[in-house]
Amino acid sequence: MDNRCIGVFDSGLGGLTCVKEIMKILPNENIVYFGDTGRVPYGTRSAETLIKYTVSDIRFLKQFNPKLIVIACGTASATALDVVKNKFDVNIMGVVVPSASAAAAATKNGRIGVIGTSRSINSGKYEQTLKSIDKGFKVFSKACPMFVPLVENGYLDAKVTYMIAEEYLAPLISAKVDTIILGCTHYPLIKKVIGDIVGESVTLIDSGKEVARQIRFEIESGKVEAAGEHSGNRFYISDRVESFTDMAEMFLETKIEGEVEKIDIEKYMV
Amino acid sequence: MDNRCIGVFDSGLGGLTCVKEIMKILPNENIVYFGDTGRVPYGTRSAETLIKYTVSDIRFLKQFNPKLIVIACGTASATALDVVKNKFDVNIMGVVVPSASAAAAATKNGRIGVIGTSRSINSGKYEQTLKSIDKGFKVFSKACPMFVPLVENGYLDAKVTYMIAEEYLAPLISAKVDTIILGCTHYPLIKKVIGDIVGESVTLIDSGKEVARQIRFEIESGKVEAAGEHSGNRFYISDRVESFTDMAEMFLETKIEGEVEKIDIEKYMV
Repeated sequence: MDNRCIGVFDSGLGGLTCVKEIMKILPNENIVYFGDTGRVPYGTRSAETLIKYTVSDIRFLKQFNPKLIVIACGTASATALDVVKNKFDVNIMGVVVPSASAAAAATKNGRIGVIGTSRSINSGKYEQTLKSIDKGFKVFSKACPMFVPLVENGYLDAKVTYMIAEEYLAPLISAKVDTIILGCTHYPLIKKVIGDIVGESVTLIDSGKEVARQIRFEIESGKVEAAGEHSGNRFYISDRVESFTDMAEMFLETKIEGEVEKIDIEKYMV
Repeated sequence: MDNRCIGVFDSGLGGLTCVKEIMKILPNENIVYFGDTGRVPYGTRSAETLIKYTVSDIRFLKQFNPKLIVIACGTASATALDVVKNKFDVNIMGVVVPSASAAAAATKNGRIGVIGTSRSINSGKYEQTLKSIDKGFKVFSKACPMFVPLVENGYLDAKVTYMIAEEYLAPLISAKVDTIILGCTHYPLIKKVIGDIVGESVTLIDSGKEVARQIRFEIESGKVEAAGEHSGNRFYISDRVESFTDMAEMFLETKIEGEVEKIDIEKYMV
């Protein structure tokens, strides 16, 4: 048994969709979540800035002596994980590999779509990972920069969201993909809109869910030890943002237990 | 004659709409612009964080020995100017007072609308300033958080922009305002959409334009000395963002002269 926590971070509150999935299938685990609300969004930053941010996020979480750190953010996983993972003596997992593996298992026609922030898509990381699994895969990527503000402003099933999603998803429909990776923690909240547009025959891969499954797999295969008992989750943010609690509970789909503490993330910059 | 520069800053590139107006009516002036692209957006940050950011932005511009610093950002002007202005031995101007004065001069029925980011609207600063001019004014404020992402993603006259603007502007139309302050540097780019919805009889106040007029007024009244000759403008940003040049030229409506330099704004944090 290893009761040490699992550290999870994201650029903001979207990573709580990942926490929700871990809580669902691994209820004994103790999670420390950090949402970098003071520096959100990550999706439009340069690679150089993202690496600096990711390093400080990991340095913050390392203090809690985690047995595993999860980068729930698609952008940070795609841009920074390869650069930072060997700099720390802790097991670090991103969302790209679990999502790509799930997409590879799900696709029948080998045509896979990837949607995410501009930075994630421009990194080419999802495509590269999918092709390393099977170089015959055809990968069609599309940046969807309006999805995050639409979700954050509560347009979860609004007509405007359908209109913008139709525009973004049209090239993936034309390309006849049968699987789409939702490469950003915000997108599960508009999964219904995306599903309505692409149709039931297309499998949507939710990165938070795949990370939770990957953790369970690592526990079952003995790479990570399971927690014996749940003693509580902890939540930290880097700025008190407007309507924080409402938004957090929208992503988490439950009440946040205990206090949410604001920390100064700049203290963890190298 | 005073050839020292006018320093202008904003959370990102939106403040270039203000630079454009200064260049238009005061072509001799030398402008140093700083766009805090590494920490954009300001509109959803806490007041505490915004004050820290504003202080560092001013410290950066102070190095150029400016005769005047303009806070082109509606959010920083509304939230931080009062707190920081006495901390520096330089003349600092925000957008709130020039915009409120112009609205006060323009209104006939005393019913004034204000639109801006959530932080600007929640600060109550526009309303307070308008009421200090005439306590009989009726002020109707509405946060428009989707306008910045719509502009930044190029939806300048799209159907979705009309739909979201109709939703945001409906309460101002119901309130029969005859003047609306565009309290954010991004909004002039969708002035046509806003104008189409509220109708020709409503006067739209563009904060960048009003700041430029206020500077000209201060020059004419001898509070600020005019530059004798234009030796060049300089542009700085805190992160290299995607499609920076396209977006900068969209706001500036002209080519950027010379190099745009990336600086480390964290060095200027106190």
